[in-house]
Amino acid sequence: MKLITAVVKPFRVDDIKEALRTFGIQGLTVTEASGYGRQRGHTEVYRGAEYQVDLVPKVRIEVLVEDSDAEDVIDVIVKKAHTGKIGDGKVWVVPVETVVRVRTGERGPDAI
Amino acid sequence: MKLITAVVKPFRVDDIKEALRTFGIQGLTVTEASGYGRQRGHTEVYRGAEYQVDLVPKVRIEVLVEDSDAEDVIDVIVKKAHTGKIGDGKVWVVPVETVVRVRTGERGPDAI
Amino acid sequence: MKLITAVVKPFRVDDIKEALRTFGIQGLTVTEASGYGRQRGHTEVYRGAEYQVDLVPKVRIEVLVEDSDAEDVIDVIVKKAHTGKIGDGKVWVVPVETVVRVRTGERGPDAI
Ligand SMILES: Nc1ncnc2c1ncn2[C@@H]1O[C@H](COP(=O)(O)OP(=O)(O)OP(=O)(O)O)[C@@H](O)[C@H]1O
Ligand SMILES: Nc1ncnc2c1ncn2[C@@H]1O[C@H](COP(=O)(O)OP(=O)(O)OP(=O)(O)O)[C@@H](O)[C@H]1O
Ligand SMILES: Nc1ncnc2c1ncn2[C@@H]1O[C@H](COP(=O)(O)OP(=O)(O)OP(=O)(O)O)[C@@H](O)[C@H]1O
Ligand SMILES: [Mg+2]
Ligand SMILES: [Mg+2]
Ligand SMILES: [Mg+2]
Repeated sequence: MKLITAVVKPFRVDDIKEALRTFGIQGLTVTEASGYGRQRGHTEVYRGAEYQVDLVPKVRIEVLVEDSDAEDVIDVIVKKAHTGKIGDGKVWVVPVETVVRVRTGERGPDAI
Repeated sequence: MKLITAVVKPFRVDDIKEALRTFGIQGLTVTEASGYGRQRGHTEVYRGAEYQVDLVPKVRIEVLVEDSDAEDVIDVIVKKAHTGKIGDGKVWVVPVETVVRVRTGERGPDAI
Repeated sequence: MKLITAVVKPFRVDDIKEALRTFGIQGLTVTEASGYGRQRGHTEVYRGAEYQVDLVPKVRIEVLVEDSDAEDVIDVIVKKAHTGKIGDGKVWVVPVETVVRVRTGERGPDAI
């Protein structure tokens, strides 16, 4: 299993969620975050305001997936997060050894 | 070492923290989050309100543990997070290569 | 590639960010968090207030790095997070299998 984390522009989150649902993803976790990438110091626009400060608001999305879904899920996220402007986001993948679904006690891919 | 992440119902957090302390866990990190699992679209109750919207408030708990504690810590969390109702939570485990305790500079299991 | 996560005192974040920039780190993600370490129950001072409660406000910093930068980046963070007082923080390292830069579609170390 894998944990896919994506840090994206907040206004792209609804489209990303919808595309993940259409793909068949059954769950995800969202956290408010902020950050910067390579153009720190350059301006990045957020809600009409230009951020010259270095920490621009972002949303951090986490999705647990089976190994066989990882590449497709990355593609879905990248496609929907993409605007072509700087600050579009970063996606990374970490190996997961165990997943537990609390209500049922299930473990492994069935628990996702 | 392992990083155990649990996304649980907010009202279960105090009991989970207390049980982890009793078990002997010495530290943890908490983040506000929101998410959905398999019943997205169904209603989930939070603070007396029914959430038909898809992102229900959750708390994300992270616990660094030695390998030999991982299974027990998962059990403690799952037992205390469990209510039997949908949305009880998800727990996952990721391998950790290094841990540093900033004040002392210690590394490895002793740094947890 | 590695994901370095640091949970530190909020007032150390600006110095940490500046030192990481000087080192050459091009991006990072910040999240508000809270937590406790080994002195839970003892007081920890935050903004002039003593926290006897167990969850003290912290900032969670995530930095994706190439393998060869991991040790140096840990050192930079630890040095700048360090005050010598309890609660200085914890840093941990997790392996990363894939990184994608959304705007360009680049993958791997070049995408960091
Ligand atoms: N090395 C990194 N480590 C951790 N998080 C990062 C890193 N780089 C970027 N991020 C996170 O991803 C967000 C988006 O980054 P961003 O899209 O600006 O990356 P970039 O490489 O500068 O690409 P672009 O040139 O398209 O702007 C940042 O605001 C930050 O939260
Ligand atoms: N695949 C997933 N990836 C990332 N986070 C998830 C995933 N599934 C669930 N979560 C997180 O865990 C929280 C709780 O999920 P939930 O307990 O509803 O899982 P479930 O599989 O639907 O189980 P249940 O049938 O008991 O509701 C969600 O709100 C979300 O934050
Ligand atoms: N085992 C752990 N798992 C997850 N997060 C932890 C753990 N221990 C500490 N943390 C996080 O790191 C923060 C700082 O921890 P802290 O510096 O108090 O660690 P410590 O081992 O008690 O060191 P010190 O003796 O210097 O206080 C905590 O507030 C918490 O957010
Ligand atoms: Mg950028
Ligand atoms: Mg559910
Ligand atoms: Mg401490």
